[in-house]
Amino acid sequence: MTTTLRAVAGEFLGSAGLAAVVIGSGIAAQSLSPGDVGLQLFENAFATALGLAVLIVVFAAVSGAHFNPVVTLVDIVLHRRPWSVAATYLPAQIFGCIGGAILANVMFAEPAMEISSTDRSGWNLWVAEAVATAGLILTIFALVRTGRSHLAAPAVGAYIGAAYFFTSSTSFANPAITIGRMFSDTFAGIAPSSVLPFIAAQLVGATVGWLLAKSLFPIAVPAPTTV
Amino acid sequence: MTTTLRAVAGEFLGSAGLAAVVIGSGIAAQSLSPGDVGLQLFENAFATALGLAVLIVVFAAVSGAHFNPVVTLVDIVLHRRPWSVAATYLPAQIFGCIGGAILANVMFAEPAMEISSTDRSGWNLWVAEAVATAGLILTIFALVRTGRSHLAAPAVGAYIGAAYFFTSSTSFANPAITIGRMFSDTFAGIAPSSVLPFIAAQLVGATVGWLLAKSLFPIAVPAPTTV
Amino acid sequence: MTTTLRAVAGEFLGSAGLAAVVIGSGIAAQSLSPGDVGLQLFENAFATALGLAVLIVVFAAVSGAHFNPVVTLVDIVLHRRPWSVAATYLPAQIFGCIGGAILANVMFAEPAMEISSTDRSGWNLWVAEAVATAGLILTIFALVRTGRSHLAAPAVGAYIGAAYFFTSSTSFANPAITIGRMFSDTFAGIAPSSVLPFIAAQLVGATVGWLLAKSLFPIAVPAPTTV
Amino acid sequence: MTTTLRAVAGEFLGSAGLAAVVIGSGIAAQSLSPGDVGLQLFENAFATALGLAVLIVVFAAVSGAHFNPVVTLVDIVLHRRPWSVAATYLPAQIFGCIGGAILANVMFAEPAMEISSTDRSGWNLWVAEAVATAGLILTIFALVRTGRSHLAAPAVGAYIGAAYFFTSSTSFANPAITIGRMFSDTFAGIAPSSVLPFIAAQLVGATVGWLLAKSLFPIAVPAPTTV
Repeated sequence: MTTTLRAVAGEFLGSAGLAAVVIGSGIAAQSLSPGDVGLQLFENAFATALGLAVLIVVFAAVSGAHFNPVVTLVDIVLHRRPWSVAATYLPAQIFGCIGGAILANVMFAEPAMEISSTDRSGWNLWVAEAVATAGLILTIFALVRTGRSHLAAPAVGAYIGAAYFFTSSTSFANPAITIGRMFSDTFAGIAPSSVLPFIAAQLVGATVGWLLAKSLFPIAVPAPTTV
Repeated sequence: MTTTLRAVAGEFLGSAGLAAVVIGSGIAAQSLSPGDVGLQLFENAFATALGLAVLIVVFAAVSGAHFNPVVTLVDIVLHRRPWSVAATYLPAQIFGCIGGAILANVMFAEPAMEISSTDRSGWNLWVAEAVATAGLILTIFALVRTGRSHLAAPAVGAYIGAAYFFTSSTSFANPAITIGRMFSDTFAGIAPSSVLPFIAAQLVGATVGWLLAKSLFPIAVPAPTTV
Repeated sequence: MTTTLRAVAGEFLGSAGLAAVVIGSGIAAQSLSPGDVGLQLFENAFATALGLAVLIVVFAAVSGAHFNPVVTLVDIVLHRRPWSVAATYLPAQIFGCIGGAILANVMFAEPAMEISSTDRSGWNLWVAEAVATAGLILTIFALVRTGRSHLAAPAVGAYIGAAYFFTSSTSFANPAITIGRMFSDTFAGIAPSSVLPFIAAQLVGATVGWLLAKSLFPIAVPAPTTV
Repeated sequence: MTTTLRAVAGEFLGSAGLAAVVIGSGIAAQSLSPGDVGLQLFENAFATALGLAVLIVVFAAVSGAHFNPVVTLVDIVLHRRPWSVAATYLPAQIFGCIGGAILANVMFAEPAMEISSTDRSGWNLWVAEAVATAGLILTIFALVRTGRSHLAAPAVGAYIGAAYFFTSSTSFANPAITIGRMFSDTFAGIAPSSVLPFIAAQLVGATVGWLLAKSLFPIAVPAPTTV
């Protein structure tokens, strides 16, 4: 495989893994801990924090382990990479997350693809998504721009684990996984009608995160070739 | 931005993030796990331990990631920094924590600002706050004075995660967040009448922590410019 | 002791430790948290993630800390080690896991050896075991082949902690522990009739993981003498 | 303070901190999560794992952070240190743990000193204590003898966090804390009549751990002056 093909494969597989972890652990939590939504979210957050950290460690050397369109877009803008990266990474992330949703459904004997009926609407959830995404972007690029990319795996895992609880939206913070979560009518799902406002809020948050990263960490270390 | 302005912005944003994590995850835990205060505190401690560690990693290179007036004060006394640092850091920490409380309230559709009615009084809670703060100060400056500041993020996160449970006061250990928590009438709130005794106990604890750090780690490595 | 004898002893002891952690914490969780299977699995996952990471740290320098026949087999194929390694490692792993099951039973005053009656069958569980094993193999060899074996302990611990929840089979992902778990009729047990299909699924998953590791990390760093 | 005095102070304070964390979080868990002993132990294990790791990081450079008579004894035997170390460390550890128990009681408004009525007897608990202590000793000295003492903090914290669940005795694994826990009639307490058999089992386990460490890691790196 060429380096580029490996990178795209890495984004696809990593995004699939992320969606499988998020949705699969949500299904397990919901069925094993019925009646306590807090405990369900705790189990879901525990699995996601650990799983996401592992996925970043594994795929960092392959594709930079973005798994998230807004991470790729901010990386392009902030570090002047070619826009062609987006043309290959974004589809890989989106189809990866859809694939991971299907995989989670299959592992738990749910219908392979079922549109979620979970409405997630409300101005306060949109504020939460913007906050969650801004914090994620700031965390990632603070590390990249201070030469500490090797800390991204534990830091991003920990960030998302915390954000499941400190935001009212449980912190999707990622357009690709927002799309993927449409395809599982389970704990982590999101109804199609709630998707576009979530993505809009994430783009607003990503912009805020980009401006903060640029202002607080103005002198970047020499840009690495991957995040 | 100048370096000083960035540092003050860093303290403001980091303190806001800390308050949003503490208060936001408290609201989530309380509403999602009704009827089990222990599980609520567990969820709150999990999110705070992870979120605080991330905030320290992110802002360490910007402002030293104090987020806490007693950390700044002990740093000035122990390492002979100019008192002017306190004049900029302390307001940033206090207003940051108030801002973070408002943000948490907004994300969870609570009134943007509502004075807490949670009484937290009792000599045993004050002992606990003194113990919690002494331990926090000792932990931070043990690392700083042995040249291991890079371990502050996981160590302080872990310390607070543990202290939520091993102290009866759930370890505020920070005058700025004590003030910020006044402004949310939710799980993590504190009634205004309970605030001053808490801060007094924290100052006593910080003094104990300072003396311990000075005695146990007498020969400091060359003082870094930021914690 | 010779180096080889130490390695075999390391695999035996580490595998025994792993089985004792998995089965012992399962017994504790089941008896202490009756009525909430999700909380039981959470406690089991917490103990396993931490315990497995410690076992890998301890035995890495002794035997490479495989504790798992498919890890040994992929290591032989991928790094062209002699097949004689399998002849000593595999029996040590299998008898170690059986020994650990007995130890867990004894510590909790269960019958020292009792065949499990827990049926674990279903095509979806087999898919889950294949996925879990592929992910485990990819995680381990991604680290080995990029010169980051020192991260295997936290990464593998975190991976299994997450996989307890994101797979429907609770991620055995190891033929030796699958055999060991037959000998405890408790939370973590598996009925003998379910064992062979689990191991078959694990072999399929290991093959997928091997191909992924080889494709995504084609240029290995010089092969270390132990994983 | 002289280096020796600091070391003894470090053992006293660290042991007090350990007992306060173990007993304090036990009291909190018991009162906040009534009716679910498993969840209580989970909260207790979470706080202990994090708190113990922090205490080791803080006191490692002061006293080696033993906090445990069997760690000191094995260190003397294995690395040929003078027996006079035991004469100062052991009393500091025992009185430290008693002090920490009192501190926990005070923080939670329990009687400052109350003899525990919790019987912990049974051959299976004694087996568990021996196993827990052997594992602890092996973990610590595996790291010391392979030049990785800096990993002791997270490894020992993780080990004890796991051992709370995988042993039936909840892993005291430390004669000093066994004595300290006598003085709090709460979750983590132990009746005086159960103490001597526990300590005897811990001594057996420590001997096993010492022999394993010596056999598996025969060529030690140059002995550090502190663990």
